[in-house]
Amino acid sequence: MPLSSHRQFDAALSFAADSVERTMDRLLPSGDSGEARVFEAMRYSSLGGGKRLRAFFVLASATLFKVGKIPALRTASAIEFVHAYSLIHDDLPAMDDDDLRRGKPSCHRQFDEATAILAGDALQALAFEVLAHEDTHGDPAVRAHLVAELAKASGAQGMVGGQMLDLLAEEQGAEQMSIGAITRLQRLKTGALISFSCAAGAILGKASEPMRLALQAYAHDLGLAFQIVDDLLDVEGNVVELGKTPGKDVAAGKATFVSILGLERARSQAGLLARQAAAHLEPFGPPADLLKQAANFVVSRRA
Amino acid sequence: MPLSSHRQFDAALSFAADSVERTMDRLLPSGDSGEARVFEAMRYSSLGGGKRLRAFFVLASATLFKVGKIPALRTASAIEFVHAYSLIHDDLPAMDDDDLRRGKPSCHRQFDEATAILAGDALQALAFEVLAHEDTHGDPAVRAHLVAELAKASGAQGMVGGQMLDLLAEEQGAEQMSIGAITRLQRLKTGALISFSCAAGAILGKASEPMRLALQAYAHDLGLAFQIVDDLLDVEGNVVELGKTPGKDVAAGKATFVSILGLERARSQAGLLARQAAAHLEPFGPPADLLKQAANFVVSRRA
Repeated sequence: MPLSSHRQFDAALSFAADSVERTMDRLLPSGDSGEARVFEAMRYSSLGGGKRLRAFFVLASATLFKVGKIPALRTASAIEFVHAYSLIHDDLPAMDDDDLRRGKPSCHRQFDEATAILAGDALQALAFEVLAHEDTHGDPAVRAHLVAELAKASGAQGMVGGQMLDLLAEEQGAEQMSIGAITRLQRLKTGALISFSCAAGAILGKASEPMRLALQAYAHDLGLAFQIVDDLLDVEGNVVELGKTPGKDVAAGKATFVSILGLERARSQAGLLARQAAAHLEPFGPPADLLKQAANFVVSRRA
Repeated sequence: MPLSSHRQFDAALSFAADSVERTMDRLLPSGDSGEARVFEAMRYSSLGGGKRLRAFFVLASATLFKVGKIPALRTASAIEFVHAYSLIHDDLPAMDDDDLRRGKPSCHRQFDEATAILAGDALQALAFEVLAHEDTHGDPAVRAHLVAELAKASGAQGMVGGQMLDLLAEEQGAEQMSIGAITRLQRLKTGALISFSCAAGAILGKASEPMRLALQAYAHDLGLAFQIVDDLLDVEGNVVELGKTPGKDVAAGKATFVSILGLERARSQAGLLARQAAAHLEPFGPPADLLKQAANFVVSRRA
């Protein structure tokens, strides 16, 4: 994409990251009561890092429907809290057993396993507490809708189900996975939450059903492109850029888009999906340009 | 209490247990998709056991305000899902490391640690999904209120905070705990969710503030009595009646109400709190008799 679009998108992503970070900081518990260790672990793992792509999707989709800044930022924070909790739990020794996250020791390495489990649990509860609070939207029907959709996207038939599939795939070995199976896995594991991030703006703005479905179609394709690039980076990336350990999937003998499709086909599939994602946004015209640029970013990112 | 009250209360508790069990069964995911292992673990740990005291509190408090059966049962199910998730995570090797729960292998023993972590995570999400669904209440403000209060009761400043305190107390050793500190610990760890169970009926019934506060005062005292009896049973109970390993607190050198107060004072303190709890219900008159009997049950139970 042209340099000016790149700059515009970079600026929007930084703005989203900075403003959601400040909102999260205010929403997280603090203090020096006895249980403060779990507050610290929640802050350690949810603040100070990450691309905040999910927050960007909320803010950018909310802009399409003229949603206020506070509702959008609170909703974005809730989604980032769920994302942070999932990373804490995924990194646990019983799960992916990862020592490094966002360039720092993972939560259970910095604190301990029990604290990490509890910090994840509390971040999940906090996400729903934030969404249900009247500051998130004046209409309680919108708040209840956001809660219901986030719960579905992150539960057994969404993100958690995807992580279960991922663990089982690892047990069974890479050769058992078809492209259909890995697509379904990723649609649940990362796609559901990304999809909700884009739908959230439409829910907050009480948009029409077709508008919301167009955004979810965009998110669906983009989520898959995002995951393919993640798999490419696991093979091609380095630890400094990634902030996490690369090559883990290969070492674990895990089926990935790259192991099934090969580097070249995976790369072209990601590009195709990103263009397809952007095409879903045509009905919105120029106001959706930022989201279209996000599709480009997803496939060109280095970390 | 007289035998007839005993029978009436037993019948009400069985009724609550049976009907919430059927509701939970319908609300839990099932099927044979790839991720079904996590559905099975969720069902294994949330169905087929437990006193369902929290469900009883929701149903009994809902009755005071003529709340319909479906809203009460769905709300009760949501709370039991949160309770079940907390037991799964508390039993994990990194936490209390318990092999036995409700007379069966604990979730991570029956399945594995990763599945147990995920089942707990998904049960928490399911609780909020159920509360936010329109079948739980026709008024979305009530649904959003239930979500907000459950999130607070179960999060870092409620149940999770209490479990953090409990783990830290174990590290520090029993001699460091004062009666004030252990009361606060238990108020967070078990009291917050029990308190919400009693408040839920008032929220569902849009009861007046004083009514709701009276129920929460009742729940506050009863929650403490409940915990003291738990500590007594840990010393005096046996594994068959309890369905979990007794003597663990003593073995772990944990501070409990019994270790601080001694058996006799702990027993009389539990009785005092139960009577105090019942006294908060005077304004409700005879319709609150069942809840008063529950206070009696809590201190006379053997498991």
